Amino acid sequence: MTEHSLWRFSRAFHRAINERQPGDLEALLDEEVDWAIYGPIDMFPFFGSRRGKAAVIEVIRRIAENVRVHRFDRESIILGTDSASSMMRYSLTALDSNKPISLRVAHFAQFKAGRLSSIRVVLDTFDLVEQVLGRDINLPRITSFA
Amino acid sequence: MTEHSLWRFSRAFHRAINERQPGDLEALLDEEVDWAIYGPIDMFPFFGSRRGKAAVIEVIRRIAENVRVHRFDRESIILGTDSASSMMRYSLTALDSNKPISLRVAHFAQFKAGRLSSIRVVLDTFDLVEQVLGRDINLPRITSFA
Repeated sequence: MTEHSLWRFSRAFHRAINERQPGDLEALLDEEVDWAIYGPIDMFPFFGSRRGKAAVIEVIRRIAENVRVHRFDRESIILGTDSASSMMRYSLTALDSNKPISLRVAHFAQFKAGRLSSIRVVLDTFDLVEQVLGRDINLPRITSFA
Repeated sequence: MTEHSLWRFSRAFHRAINERQPGDLEALLDEEVDWAIYGPIDMFPFFGSRRGKAAVIEVIRRIAENVRVHRFDRESIILGTDSASSMMRYSLTALDSNKPISLRVAHFAQFKAGRLSSIRVVLDTFDLVEQVLGRDINLPRITSFA
C-alpha cells in the first residue's frame, strides 16, 4: 500500500514553512495548481486565490516570512482516492510580534498523479483577526432569544 | 448500495431550518451527539459546543429563528464509511434584517448506526461578521512584504 499523497504534501509543506525549503514542495505541486485560503486579504495578503506552481510557491514563501508552525493536530481526517480533507488545530508564532496564535483550519485537497492540483482552506478568521490584533473586536449580539 | 448517512442528515437538517420541522432530524441524532460550530458566540449565541440530542435540537431551533437557507452548493465532498466532510457555500437570509448572507462552511461529520455522533463546523467567520454588521471592520495590514 503506497502512502497517501496527503502525507508527502504535508511534510513538504511544513518543511517549506519552517525551514524555508520549498524544494520538496515544488515537486509535489501540479503545474496548474488551484489554491485558495479564504480570509481577509487586506490584513493577510497571503490569503486569497493563487493559480499555478510559481504563484503558490511565492505565497508559501510569504506565509513562511510571517509564521512559524509549532505544532499541529489533525482532529478529523477523511481520505479519498485522490483527495483528502482534514480539520486541524495549529499552534503558530507570528514572526513580527513573536505572538502565539492558535488556529483551527479545515482543508480540502485534490491530487493528480501524486501532486496537489487543488486546495481550499477555511479558517475561523474572526478568531485569527482578534488574536493578531491582540484585542477583542466589540460585537453586538444579533439575536433576541426567547 | 444504501444511501450515505450524510444525505439523509442533510435533508433533515435543511428541513429543520427552513420548515422548522426538527422531527426527521431528531431520529438522525445520536443520544450523545457532540456538536460544535466555531465562531464568536458573543454575536452568535447559537455557535459553540453542544452535547446530546436535546441540546442540539434546541440550538438548531435557534438557528432556524435566525436564518433561512436559500441555496447551498457542495464545492467539495469526501465520504468515508461512517464519516463525511464537505466544503459548502450557503446563501442565507438573516431573518431579523432580511439581509442576504453568503457563507463558506466546512464540516466534518461522524455517524454511528446511521445517526450523527459528531460534527465540527468551521466558517469564514470574519466575512460573516462583516456581512451581518453591514460594514467593513478596519484592519491593519500585518505584513511588510519585500
